[in-house]
Amino acid sequence: MGKALSCSLVFLCFFMPLAFADWNILTQKTRSGLRISLKNYCESWRMNVELHNIRDFQVVPAECTDYIGKYVRSTQYKVDSERATEECLVYLSTSCNLKKDGKDAWVFDIDDTLLSTIPYYKNNGYGGNKLNETDFEDWLGKGKGTALEYSLNLFNELKSRGVQIILISSRREYLRSATIDNLVNSGYHGWAGLILRSPADELVSVAKYKADARKQLINNGYRIWGILGDQYSSFDSPPSCTRGFKLPNPMYYVA
Amino acid sequence: MGKALSCSLVFLCFFMPLAFADWNILTQKTRSGLRISLKNYCESWRMNVELHNIRDFQVVPAECTDYIGKYVRSTQYKVDSERATEECLVYLSTSCNLKKDGKDAWVFDIDDTLLSTIPYYKNNGYGGNKLNETDFEDWLGKGKGTALEYSLNLFNELKSRGVQIILISSRREYLRSATIDNLVNSGYHGWAGLILRSPADELVSVAKYKADARKQLINNGYRIWGILGDQYSSFDSPPSCTRGFKLPNPMYYVA
Repeated sequence: MGKALSCSLVFLCFFMPLAFADWNILTQKTRSGLRISLKNYCESWRMNVELHNIRDFQVVPAECTDYIGKYVRSTQYKVDSERATEECLVYLSTSCNLKKDGKDAWVFDIDDTLLSTIPYYKNNGYGGNKLNETDFEDWLGKGKGTALEYSLNLFNELKSRGVQIILISSRREYLRSATIDNLVNSGYHGWAGLILRSPADELVSVAKYKADARKQLINNGYRIWGILGDQYSSFDSPPSCTRGFKLPNPMYYVA
Repeated sequence: MGKALSCSLVFLCFFMPLAFADWNILTQKTRSGLRISLKNYCESWRMNVELHNIRDFQVVPAECTDYIGKYVRSTQYKVDSERATEECLVYLSTSCNLKKDGKDAWVFDIDDTLLSTIPYYKNNGYGGNKLNETDFEDWLGKGKGTALEYSLNLFNELKSRGVQIILISSRREYLRSATIDNLVNSGYHGWAGLILRSPADELVSVAKYKADARKQLINNGYRIWGILGDQYSSFDSPPSCTRGFKLPNPMYYVA
């Protein structure tokens, strides 16, 4: 038994770390000559995406797809996302004077905000493969997006406070019925508006399409208190008087 | 020897991990009941500060000051910062049409952008203690800020491309001479402007003071192509047509 024990200890001490070693070995040098690991490199890529310093990327760097895949499947991704939704409620409770006249509103993205597309990206290199739109829309049409639990909790909490919920998504109009089915089957119901992209909206950037949709809502009397999204294009353009909350999403970039 | 080996293996396998164990043990629960470690909690706090979801914080949560201190002393902080400065050059090369008429400009913050205040925060709980302004200004007056290497590289690269460098800092005017000494002793020279806060500027937020300073520069004919800072208040307010680049800074928040 003593022998079996030290044998398994040898295994644990010497062999298990090797399985993870490639992430932490200082194999690379930065421009300034700093010796770094692949993990350092991929983490700095991810951080600078979230800082909005890296923009308009088409694919996740090939050497980082494992790292990004690991993050979006991790507890950390869940905790980061839950914290973002909690800050929405902190803001709503401390900074917003709700009038409760049916015109207080909150805007949500759909993909990777209410419904996770990670099951799709899992089979497509976690952002490492250039997006095949036909293929992706086929997947959306099947309604297999999974609820993001913390967003669902926020959605329900806002509803219970009398806030009108408006969904503004860059999904195309023809996906409306599949989108509604997917939302309802995932536990979302009781929204006040679901805005999808018409063929005319496809002529402009997602940021402009979403800003125009918010302008229309404001013209209709809504007070948009906040927006929860996973992309800066969901809240960067005017009217930006309302506050945006961003969920982490290092898999893709929407301009 | 066999015994000594398995003894040290026992030590390595069972005792060494204990030294780090407090960070990774699932000791906490989130609101939704997710079991998380202190590391998960502190990392999600840091990430949401950088996402600009957590704002106006006065101090780093007490239980996270060790985690934040470790980050700002780490290789990861350096890599994250270097990557931010590299993205400035990518942007300048691909998106900016420099006229090279002496009016192309780039704006920098000073504290934790050109000069590190980490030596100060190291002795003040890495953001865990509420800032004592008198104490902090005494430290600034001593000119002990250290150069942030990657910012210095960017500063020199921009200069060599004929871009005018303007420093806009929330430091107060009376610190001008100490600030210049600290900058020059750290390797910075050849800037085109150094704007510090006058007593009148102290009546408004840092974000407004900095936006007003940029407006004045634009009125004077400068084309500000970009801003490098460690706070969203350095580039959030209009004129925001120029692009801001944010360095990581989880130690304090400037509104």
